[in-house]
Parts: sequence; structure tokens; C-alpha cells
Amino acid sequence: MTKEFLQLKTSQELADILKDYVRPFHQQQKLMVDLKEAWRRILAETLKAGEDLPPFSRSAVDGYAALAEDTYGAGPDLPVYLDVIGEVEMGKSTSLELNRGEVAAIPTGGMLPRGADCCIMIEDTEKIPDGRIEVMSDYAPGQHVIHQGDDIKAESVLLEAGSKLGAPEIGALAGLGYYRVPVFPALEAAVISTGNELISPDEERRPGEIRDINSYALGALLEEWGHKPRLYGIVEDSRQALLRALEECRKSDLILLSGGSSVGVKDLSIDVINQTGSPGVVLHGLAVKPGKPTILGFLKETPVLGLPGNPASALVIASLIIPALIRLIRGLSLPSKKEVYLTAITARLEQPISSAPGREEFFPVALSRMNNGREKDVIIGARPIAGKSNLITTLVESAGLVRIAAGQEGLPAGSSVEVIPLTGERGLLFRKEIDKDG
Amino acid sequence: MTKEFLQLKTSQELADILKDYVRPFHQQQKLMVDLKEAWRRILAETLKAGEDLPPFSRSAVDGYAALAEDTYGAGPDLPVYLDVIGEVEMGKSTSLELNRGEVAAIPTGGMLPRGADCCIMIEDTEKIPDGRIEVMSDYAPGQHVIHQGDDIKAESVLLEAGSKLGAPEIGALAGLGYYRVPVFPALEAAVISTGNELISPDEERRPGEIRDINSYALGALLEEWGHKPRLYGIVEDSRQALLRALEECRKSDLILLSGGSSVGVKDLSIDVINQTGSPGVVLHGLAVKPGKPTILGFLKETPVLGLPGNPASALVIASLIIPALIRLIRGLSLPSKKEVYLTAITARLEQPISSAPGREEFFPVALSRMNNGREKDVIIGARPIAGKSNLITTLVESAGLVRIAAGQEGLPAGSSVEVIPLTGERGLLFRKEIDKDG
Repeated sequence: MTKEFLQLKTSQELADILKDYVRPFHQQQKLMVDLKEAWRRILAETLKAGEDLPPFSRSAVDGYAALAEDTYGAGPDLPVYLDVIGEVEMGKSTSLELNRGEVAAIPTGGMLPRGADCCIMIEDTEKIPDGRIEVMSDYAPGQHVIHQGDDIKAESVLLEAGSKLGAPEIGALAGLGYYRVPVFPALEAAVISTGNELISPDEERRPGEIRDINSYALGALLEEWGHKPRLYGIVEDSRQALLRALEECRKSDLILLSGGSSVGVKDLSIDVINQTGSPGVVLHGLAVKPGKPTILGFLKETPVLGLPGNPASALVIASLIIPALIRLIRGLSLPSKKEVYLTAITARLEQPISSAPGREEFFPVALSRMNNGREKDVIIGARPIAGKSNLITTLVESAGLVRIAAGQEGLPAGSSVEVIPLTGERGLLFRKEIDKDG
Repeated sequence: MTKEFLQLKTSQELADILKDYVRPFHQQQKLMVDLKEAWRRILAETLKAGEDLPPFSRSAVDGYAALAEDTYGAGPDLPVYLDVIGEVEMGKSTSLELNRGEVAAIPTGGMLPRGADCCIMIEDTEKIPDGRIEVMSDYAPGQHVIHQGDDIKAESVLLEAGSKLGAPEIGALAGLGYYRVPVFPALEAAVISTGNELISPDEERRPGEIRDINSYALGALLEEWGHKPRLYGIVEDSRQALLRALEECRKSDLILLSGGSSVGVKDLSIDVINQTGSPGVVLHGLAVKPGKPTILGFLKETPVLGLPGNPASALVIASLIIPALIRLIRGLSLPSKKEVYLTAITARLEQPISSAPGREEFFPVALSRMNNGREKDVIIGARPIAGKSNLITTLVESAGLVRIAAGQEGLPAGSSVEVIPLTGERGLLFRKEIDKDG
């Protein structure tokens, strides 16, 4: 029990290990789903627009399609008079063609007739009995017209592979006729909790026992990232029980093992992973706080992640490793630092954070918003959540994590910090390469 | 067709109208779900901790439970010698009780024996043959101990009604034995697209026709907020078709009608809503850009929302109204301005935004992150997305919306702006009351 952790790896070494060992086995495998089922899915292919959107130039107003130059100089006191030669019908092609001095009635969304270059709002016109209209305003070419391809041009990239499909993306796919879309299949992730002290939350608790938090919290995190958790349940800290659990889960795409942080139990996990499949354990111990006792192994191609037993630590390390792992499984590259930080909220640290140098640290903070009444002067305060960082209510209270690089010795109060959401799908790990733009 | 919109309402008048008309019919109705099914659900009751978490004081390390004062002054050159009187077994209650000079072996997570007030790390000790240990370090009371109730104390509020259940919340519920949790049932929302120009995305498109975007984009947005969209389909702009659609959807909890922005079609929608149920239309026209042609009505208690036909406008107005509406249906209050802005990202406007005064405006912006190499000096740039704001690809590209209050005449480049996510579950509408803290 006195054996210390093997050499701790930095998160950048972790990134290299992931790149070396993860096989992109889902790279070719794609699932075609109906657009109605596509919400939150991750696009598996880069899709281009197959046609212009809108596919024809349309009016943005109710009124008259016209030639702008016919209105030059028009005003309330100097109307121009134009001939109405017909009406564009909604949803139909129009064969109308305008010459100088002519307009056509058009509804919002109607197809612009040939020759027209603007649409006059009905409010700027007056019908006169001879079939003409009076126009009381001066129009510019293009005014109140949505041109063919204004939204997107044919052959432009619509969405990149790896895009998460939210409401705007699904709308764009609908608009371009992508009724079925190629997405990545959800991964099945087995979640095993180990520990002789653990009971299920629905069991009667006896003294010395603790309810299993990790199965449920990790399951929810996997769902947040679009995957299918398979809660295997609680396994006692014995070689036999662990071996059986790993064997029974090895068909899953990913295995999460969380529990007992004691050195003896960790050693047991390592032995069992090495015994169950090759190459076995490839990382043991991270120079990341919280997360020192992290284990990463592979049973052939199936990753096994040994997470800390403390629920908050387990969630932070899951967020550090799983999104990165899954991107690589899917044949995508790791995000850049800039991408990881793009969803971060910039805040002002209200209290100092002290951090031992030599370890990268993720510190949960709560956000509050101070606003002195002027819209321009909003200050977001980040309050480090006091107390022991491995408590689950700490994460409930927190809005995200402040990352303190290994070389930094804490941060003084008043520092500008970046608060990264815990459950962001880009995760916490970024690629090593230095981007030009940081 | 020349009839102008009725008096436009401000978003704060909209909030008042919602408060007047929305009946909290789901206030009493709650659904008990298994914790495994609880992800993304909204908690329907405020839940307190039924017991302390952890329920007993635990060791945070592998080592020995001890009395700190026995170690005072100890160091590498001046060890103290303590008697090991037994071992705490993981997951069991311990009857051990320590007196001065005594320690008990304890694993990480083991129950602290009576009399102990700290845990000595195994690395700071050496076993000696006579059954005693040498301690080479000085300990403070409480060190390496997670005390009973450190995470949360019995009777403290664990989660407020209205909380969204993510991974940390679900973990906390598991830890406190909430295996089944009271959540709000998802609402069924009927989504009707109107317009003679519309076709389904899987149909062959003919000239003058446009694919229905709104059904899919609004459906995804409803899913984002945890609801069940029921895509009714495309309805032509005729009184009979609209009447039948509303009748067939009136059993839904909420009806969304989007489409034809022409004044004639809007007038038709208003007539049909008024004809289908009382009180009928209660709001017609918003002083919000985009969103002027918005309609809100009620068929008895069922809200009917008439959204702009432009997909991007429809999504912005849906985000302005639906989350607020649903909070009120559920008996929750509208969020404060501070709450709405809490998920916003503060950014520096890269280009000026011009906005006509008198209307509140929501402007989509894309974010970019400029980092000059120093962690402290990250600048997020917000770039107004050029072009016509009613394009769906505009929202794909945008990270969120900048709100320009009705009194503001645009914003100069370099302004500090708040970028509110479009799909945030708090929505865009906040309550009128001025909070003390802004």
C-alpha cells in the first residue's frame, strides 16, 4: 500500500497518449437519421449547400416589385406613377417581366419577377383608380429584396463534420433539403462504480456506507455529450468482481471505472485491466488537480478510464478525457485551445486562488453579476467555491472551472479569469500545437 | 392589405400580458421519474437534504486516523510513535475509539473512529516491528478529514424548484438518496407552418417554392428546452385549413403557428384564433426587432403563438416568449435580468451596430477570441453578422444575440456587449421589476 503513483503525466502528455492509442473505429461508420431525430446529434460529414438558399430572389415586404430607378427622386410631395402589370402569386413561379415604369404586386416571400430590382412597401404607395400606383418614396436597387443565395450559395460549406445540430443547424438543413442527415452513432459507455462502501441510492443506508453518486453523475454527463450510458452498477473491490465486470463490459465502446481512490484498489484496477486486454494500462496518474489517481487503459481498442472516486474529481477528469477520446474515436482532431476557451465566460476573480506549482489545476467557481446600472459596465464576478474540492454540491453551485496552468502559482483577487463550462462538449483538453492565434 | 399593425407592445408589456393570461396549470402536476431518466429535466419541487452528506466523517487519504495533538512538533528528524489499535474496514461502521497516543489504520473513504480528528497520510509514516508507527509530520485537527455534512447539511436546500438537472445535480440527488425525483412533465407543443409557398424538405421543389425550415428549427428549439414538439406540418393560407389545424392542435399544451408575414395572412391568423377560442388574440405586434408581426393568443388556457415567417426571426421570438410562457405555466416566476444575463458572454464589439431607436433589437453576433499570448489578456471579439437578419445561416454562425434596448441608438465599435445564447433555457425575456442588484 506504500507504492506511490507512477510518473504523473501532464494533460499534454495525455493528449499525445490518446492520439497514439485511440483507434478511429467510428470514422467510417455513420448513421442516417431523419431531421426530426437529429437534435443534438453530431454531424458525421461536412455538408455543402446543394443549391442557393433562397433558391430565387424574394420580396421581403408586401407591396410591389419594381425598378428602383423608376422611383429616383420620389417623395411625399413628388410621387411617381407606375403601371401595375400583374400580381406575383405566392409559391408559384412568375412569368411576369417588368419594363421601365412597370410594377407587379407581390406578397412577402413572393418570387421577384424578371426586370425588378427592388420591392416597394405597400405603405409607401397609394392605389389610383386607373390601375396605377402612386409611389411616395425613393428606393435603392436591392431594397426589400432577399436575393437568390443571400442565405447561402450553392456549393458553399453548410456545416462542418463534427458540428452539433441545434435549432439553427437543423433549420439550415431543412432549408437545403437535407431531410436525412449523416450523424455519428451514439457511443455505448459502460459505467462501473467500485467500492465496498457503496450502495445504490434506493437502498437503505447502514453506518459506514455511502450512496453511489458516480454512476448517476457520469451517466448524465455521457447523456449531455449525446451518448448512451449503461450503468453496470456497483462492484466490490475484489479481483474476481472487477475482472467479471470488465469482461461483461468489453463490448461497450468505452468503459468508465470509478471508485476507491486508495492505492491498493488502484493497483488492483491496473492489474485487472492489464489482465483483461492488451495493451492494458497506458497512463497511470495525472499531474492534474483534481485527478492524480486517473488511469487510462485499452482492452484492444476499447478505452477503459479509471476515474477518481470523488464525484467532483471524477466529473472534472471525465470532462478532461472523454470528449477528447470521442473526437479521436470519430476521426476528428482535438479542439484547439481557442476552441475550448470560446465557450468560456470571462470573469473577475473575487478572491485569490492558491495553487501548488507543477500541477495543472481546475478550480470550480460560482458566477455573480454586478451591474452598476449602466448596460456597458457589467462585471461578472467569479467566486472560488470554498471548501473541499471533491464535494458534489461544489459543482452544483459552480458555473464552470478556472484552469490554472502547471506553471502558475495561483491567481490574485481581481485577476481576469476564463470560466470553462464543466459539461461543454469540447471538454477541457486541447491540442498541443500552438495556434497562430493562441 | 393596407391595414397597419395594431399598437406594438414592448417586451415588458409582453411580460405583463403573459402574467395576466397564462394559467399555471402544471403547477400541481408533477411527474416522478427515476434518477436514470432525470437528465435535463426541470425539478418541480424544492428538495432539501434529508441527511448530512457525507453521513459520517471520512478519511480523505490512505493512512491512519489519529489525534492531531499527538503529532504536534513531529518532523522528519523528530518522529512521534503511536500505537495502532486496529483497522477501519471500508463500508462498515467502526466501534474503535482512540485515546491519546493511539491511531487506527484507515482507507480513503473509511469512517473516522471516535476520538480521531485527523488522518495521517501513509506516506508520512513508517511501520515499526512492535506494531507502532513512526509519524514524520505535524498534523492539524481536521486535516485530511471530510467531516460529516461537509458537502451538505441535513435540512439545507439541495436544489430549488425550476433547477435543470445536469450531471452535478443528478450526482447530488443520488448522494442524498433521491432515487425518484419530482420533475415537470414535458409540454406537448404543436408546430404548424403556414404558407402556400412551403414544401416539406423531402419534397421535390418547384420554382417559387421554399422548403419549410420553421417546423424543424422550432421543433429542435422545443427539444432543447425539454419539450415534445408535434410537427403538424404545412397548412395553406386559407381560413378553412387554419381553422382545422387549430382545432386539431387545441389539446396540445402550446401551439406555435409560423409563416406568412404578409399583413393579409396575419389578419387571417388573428380571425381564426379569435374564432377558435376565447380570449383569442391578446397581443398583436411587438416593438422588437426582429419580431414585429408576432401574435399571442389563448384558446381558453392554451397559448397560441403566431411567429414571424422568417426562420431566424421566428427563433428569436420563440426564445423571447416560450421559456417565459413555460415558466409561468409551471408556476415559476420570470427570471430577473441578472439571471438572463448570467449565461451571457461579455465581448468587445468589432464593428458598430446601428439600431433605430424605439424598438428593442436582438442582433446576432459571431464570437472570436483574440489572445496575445498572456492568459490574463484574452479578448473576445463580437462581430455583428452582416446581411439580412432573417437568414437561417446567420444564426448558425452566431454564438448568441446582443440586445439593444429600445432607448439605445446602436452601439459603437469597441463597446462591451453581452452575448446571450439563443437557446438558453432562461430565454430572452426578464421580469420588469428592478432588482436591487440590477
